[in-house]
Amino acid sequence: MTNEKKVRCVGETHVNRFREIVGEAHVYTEEETLNQYGHDETEQLSYLPEIVIKPRTAVEISEILKICNKELIPVTPRGAGTGLSGGALPYKGGVVISTERMNRILQIDEQNLQVITEPGVITGVLQEAVKEKGLFYPPDPASRDSCFIGGNIAENSGGPRALKYGVVKDYVLNLEVVLPDGSIIWTGANVLKNATGYNLTQLIVGSEGTLGIVTKIVLKLLSMPKYDLLMLVPFPTLEKAGEAVSAIFSAGFTPSSLELMEEDALRIVSKTTPDLTVPLSPETEAQLIIEVDGNHKEILMSEIEAISELLTKYDAGEIYFAEDEQQKSALWQARRKVAEVVKLNGFTIEEDTVVPRAALPALIRGVKTLGKQYNFDTVCYGHAGDGNLHIRIRKEGIKNSGADPEMVKILRSLFELVKDLGGTISAEHGIGLVQKSYMDIVMSEKHFQLMRDIKKAFDPNNILNTGKIFDS
Amino acid sequence: MTNEKKVRCVGETHVNRFREIVGEAHVYTEEETLNQYGHDETEQLSYLPEIVIKPRTAVEISEILKICNKELIPVTPRGAGTGLSGGALPYKGGVVISTERMNRILQIDEQNLQVITEPGVITGVLQEAVKEKGLFYPPDPASRDSCFIGGNIAENSGGPRALKYGVVKDYVLNLEVVLPDGSIIWTGANVLKNATGYNLTQLIVGSEGTLGIVTKIVLKLLSMPKYDLLMLVPFPTLEKAGEAVSAIFSAGFTPSSLELMEEDALRIVSKTTPDLTVPLSPETEAQLIIEVDGNHKEILMSEIEAISELLTKYDAGEIYFAEDEQQKSALWQARRKVAEVVKLNGFTIEEDTVVPRAALPALIRGVKTLGKQYNFDTVCYGHAGDGNLHIRIRKEGIKNSGADPEMVKILRSLFELVKDLGGTISAEHGIGLVQKSYMDIVMSEKHFQLMRDIKKAFDPNNILNTGKIFDS
Repeated sequence: MTNEKKVRCVGETHVNRFREIVGEAHVYTEEETLNQYGHDETEQLSYLPEIVIKPRTAVEISEILKICNKELIPVTPRGAGTGLSGGALPYKGGVVISTERMNRILQIDEQNLQVITEPGVITGVLQEAVKEKGLFYPPDPASRDSCFIGGNIAENSGGPRALKYGVVKDYVLNLEVVLPDGSIIWTGANVLKNATGYNLTQLIVGSEGTLGIVTKIVLKLLSMPKYDLLMLVPFPTLEKAGEAVSAIFSAGFTPSSLELMEEDALRIVSKTTPDLTVPLSPETEAQLIIEVDGNHKEILMSEIEAISELLTKYDAGEIYFAEDEQQKSALWQARRKVAEVVKLNGFTIEEDTVVPRAALPALIRGVKTLGKQYNFDTVCYGHAGDGNLHIRIRKEGIKNSGADPEMVKILRSLFELVKDLGGTISAEHGIGLVQKSYMDIVMSEKHFQLMRDIKKAFDPNNILNTGKIFDS
Repeated sequence: MTNEKKVRCVGETHVNRFREIVGEAHVYTEEETLNQYGHDETEQLSYLPEIVIKPRTAVEISEILKICNKELIPVTPRGAGTGLSGGALPYKGGVVISTERMNRILQIDEQNLQVITEPGVITGVLQEAVKEKGLFYPPDPASRDSCFIGGNIAENSGGPRALKYGVVKDYVLNLEVVLPDGSIIWTGANVLKNATGYNLTQLIVGSEGTLGIVTKIVLKLLSMPKYDLLMLVPFPTLEKAGEAVSAIFSAGFTPSSLELMEEDALRIVSKTTPDLTVPLSPETEAQLIIEVDGNHKEILMSEIEAISELLTKYDAGEIYFAEDEQQKSALWQARRKVAEVVKLNGFTIEEDTVVPRAALPALIRGVKTLGKQYNFDTVCYGHAGDGNLHIRIRKEGIKNSGADPEMVKILRSLFELVKDLGGTISAEHGIGLVQKSYMDIVMSEKHFQLMRDIKKAFDPNNILNTGKIFDS
């Protein structure tokens, strides 16, 4: 699908000015690059930009935005393009600003347990860099080996560890942001507590690049926990696995991760993960991946034993313990690859539902009932401990959620169920393009109006990532 | 000081309408009540309202706001009136809406570890109620036995435990808010992760009642840690104590609290706390209160030993261990009473500075140097682990920070120092009235403009707590 209504906005004079700003080598107008930056990891969508610019500094971005703001040229900021809601797609054409050259970690502050980084650093690279100093940046989206920290800020990403350690927003102390008019501001200060004016930092986090372009990021870090233990626990039914999740918390445990995978997902992914030697069984419908971490190994051992004991009440089968780093790594690798692998198996539509944790069994039941009613297949997995269930959908003949009236009907039913269960439509992937037509299910017109007015305060000419989250 | 420029806005027709909405018994116009609601705990300020209304429900507040919005009557929301920045003072006269009758805890959800509460519940009461179910709401401002949870949301309050557990914003999942035009919205969903549109929840937290009136609050809870250990550690100089704070974190420890008190403060407060039997010495300039908590007593014991060992390198004196609940309680009570007691001793001006933790010794040095330069006395205490230093100021003949040109000069110098050290002017008390004239030190004109435009999006008629944080 390509955006048909696109109007050409970028003229030769603009291109020349952009070349002067960032250098000729960093401005791209040839088809191959435009095609590449017209995609991300969201379903099969494509929206072509007219030009791709790769600036190196906030000042360069400021100069570009001043021109675009004056000339009303649409601008789409882009990280690594691993997003799952179409946030980085140039929906209105115009300019894509890629942050890939802004890839330096500027300072690891070991005294204050903070890191200052540019947005184009790969999340996994950042994690490794602070780990070398004994420090810990917990948020770990499945795409951590390719996604950028800037994109994580835009989408308020999570990952398996959100359960114990929180999501991206819980680590962002301060942001340097270039606003659509070219102004550069810092949203806060490099401090752990701040009650000085409105929380613009948290307003930018999760705003999907619609309010400003983040050019420097100050993150809080923790001390690295010394040990972790990992196990995989099979359950005869998805619902039993869902019930077990709630029971673990009610019993007072706080695992560092608590992931759910439908057995089908594990079966599909195990075919492409030779290192993964976990037992699979036709009597198993779902598995929980449970990790505990901390600084005292013997305590973790007794914790994992107590959890195992508790899980027998929920018909848990034989537990697989990941014995060494290789087995742990294979299991996590499999978990991280699920989305990609099941997508290749035809489950092209991914939803990112979230409900209060105890409503997880009801959500799972509802999803399967809807599948029977509307004749579609699902594979469920995700961050069960947070009540965050990713639902991958396959329906004969339908590739994109936005394009098909029947799929729209299915998704509306799904999201109404989620809303009824006290949940909402995105936990960590954002709204972008593909979820925006469902926002009315969870938001009132007044709520939309507030968001539109906030957008207008930041971007009065409506040039920045326009048409994402809501129609502005 | 009383607001001289006040214009009468509330007529008899309005009063009658308000009586119809909330019932005659809950509308107050007599002088004694107006005087009472013209004060809070901020210095010696007084701004009289014309009327005080005590509604019971969000719908009642909505009806009141519809009238005020139409008639352009200023409205000031008020919790328990324990604020330290003048946030609850009716600066423009008009209506005070007190939430004191909205004092029910609506649901403690043990399955999802959440509590739903009205805003007029005393924070300590809420903590005790969830504790009875084995659950834990960590934020504990010094005023917890009198302040309201709604006021804590307005100011994004902290307290000693913020260090390990975060501040109020880290626990707020969802808010019911009445907007100035009378609309009632929920800002999010009762879920742990949310990437569905702009984060209005976090925009409301810390907005000091200028954007809407919070009428229901959904908070995340934790499991209650089983044990805590507490010690008081004397240091010969304030700076040594400050250096020790940084060292504790660099060594990988995360205490649940790490508070600093100048020995003078402890001396003053001990006179009014007969239960407190801690040793005081003329050779001690500052003390650190250090608490660790967790589920394994023996680990806490070894942790506290390791910390004690480390502190000898920073010239720590003889450590006092609080042996039982009574001793712990006396020590915490003393810490919580400091602000009140030193205020009675003439230190009427309280600042709430925050810097990156490692800059604490430089801040302390700077404060004392400024004191010599401008001839004022200070007592410092606060949440040292967060870099959050409360500075109480006493200067002959000056009672309020806002009223005196010399005090303004002193505070500008102090805040410029804070800014130079990478910090900001409020960590947990908010800006309100008394800090707003210093905001230009930490914020650009563009930043102000964004805040003004956000205020306008929520409150186009500028009726709600107008003149707080910034001039709008």
